[in-house]
Amino acid sequence: MTTTQLIYEGKAKKIYSTTDERVVVMEFKNSLTAFNALKKGEFDGKGQVNCEISTLFFQALKQHNISSHWIETVDGNKMRVFKTQIIPLEVVVRNRIAGSLAKKFKWTEGQVLEKPLVEYYYKNDELQDPFVSREQAIAFKWATEDELQQIEKLTLRINDVLIKILQQAQISLVDFKIEFGKLPSGEIVLSDEISPDSMRLWDVNTQEKLDKDRFRLDLGDVKTGYTEILNRLRKVL
Amino acid sequence: MTTTQLIYEGKAKKIYSTTDERVVVMEFKNSLTAFNALKKGEFDGKGQVNCEISTLFFQALKQHNISSHWIETVDGNKMRVFKTQIIPLEVVVRNRIAGSLAKKFKWTEGQVLEKPLVEYYYKNDELQDPFVSREQAIAFKWATEDELQQIEKLTLRINDVLIKILQQAQISLVDFKIEFGKLPSGEIVLSDEISPDSMRLWDVNTQEKLDKDRFRLDLGDVKTGYTEILNRLRKVL
Repeated sequence: MTTTQLIYEGKAKKIYSTTDERVVVMEFKNSLTAFNALKKGEFDGKGQVNCEISTLFFQALKQHNISSHWIETVDGNKMRVFKTQIIPLEVVVRNRIAGSLAKKFKWTEGQVLEKPLVEYYYKNDELQDPFVSREQAIAFKWATEDELQQIEKLTLRINDVLIKILQQAQISLVDFKIEFGKLPSGEIVLSDEISPDSMRLWDVNTQEKLDKDRFRLDLGDVKTGYTEILNRLRKVL
Repeated sequence: MTTTQLIYEGKAKKIYSTTDERVVVMEFKNSLTAFNALKKGEFDGKGQVNCEISTLFFQALKQHNISSHWIETVDGNKMRVFKTQIIPLEVVVRNRIAGSLAKKFKWTEGQVLEKPLVEYYYKNDELQDPFVSREQAIAFKWATEDELQQIEKLTLRINDVLIKILQQAQISLVDFKIEFGKLPSGEIVLSDEISPDSMRLWDVNTQEKLDKDRFRLDLGDVKTGYTEILNRLRKVL
């Protein structure tokens, strides 16, 4: 792998171009941010933990014939991934009520939804990623009706696979956020990452939060939570 | 018509029970509120103007086989309407970008949408009527999938009828909010009102705002705007 230059630096990742124009390298940083980057933190090894968790999920999804941008993981905290045209939507799947949904309707966290609920947020830092409807996403051409149908189908399949894996690890998948990109062929694939930064993961027995809410809400050592998730996943994957 | 007692008083209307248990009387008040009732006002005759505009719209819709709760208008500012079980959603149709949609995405007002955009807001004063998705409305049982399909179909037909009427009156229908209720038979019908309180109506030539935005944004005499709408509608209906 030959990286050439840094082409993008976000809150939790850096992207480098490579000598292969179809491929970029995604480096997981040690930084943590929350509340639209108003709260900042980091811990040593965080990039590596998230990269490994993401790798385990991408590999498991591949075994279930769900394509992602992932090609291979290198140097512990980097992935070679296919370059995609990003669809500017954060896709959230909720299995239980928590986080912004609980806040919006003044509900307590934890209630299990009858069916997974898919939500969309428009990726736009200036606007603070507002919640949007499917109909708005289509009207404003962030995705086509056909693309959203594919995204929904993929999202629900990903949710099914992740729920099963995490159940084996004694973890409840409360909700998570994913993103999708389009390959030059037009195929829509899972992109970005799947890590505790963008998931709510509760211990099935104690309901202890193991994910980024530890950081958001100052609930305990963040590294311990993330490492616990990784260790449990290593045992089942 | 024999009204018995006041059973509900809202920001712009009062509801009275009648001796016929299937029927209530809806009285249009002279008060005006905006920004979740933080801004308050009123003008003499406002109730009557809104009642007459609503009546004209309900009658025109009836001629297009679109049912509403309206039975008859009495005393200038009151309507006998069928009692319905309210579906707790405000249904907004947008033909052009304006109001909260423009604000949410930092867009300028006025752009015409390729297709009408239907949005839902959960009717809840304490939560300030939050924007919700179709999927949330179903998940939280505010309406069923089937009911929403009926509502959408009705809403788009209502939009078509209103656009044509208003065009004849040289008025551009920018957006409007309607509500639906369920009759004891299970039929979903248009309820509440259709008035300048819940519509954006611009003069087609000058783009002058004739509706409640005059009150919200202190753009000019509110009564003049509302009366202008009524007078133009009287000529075409």
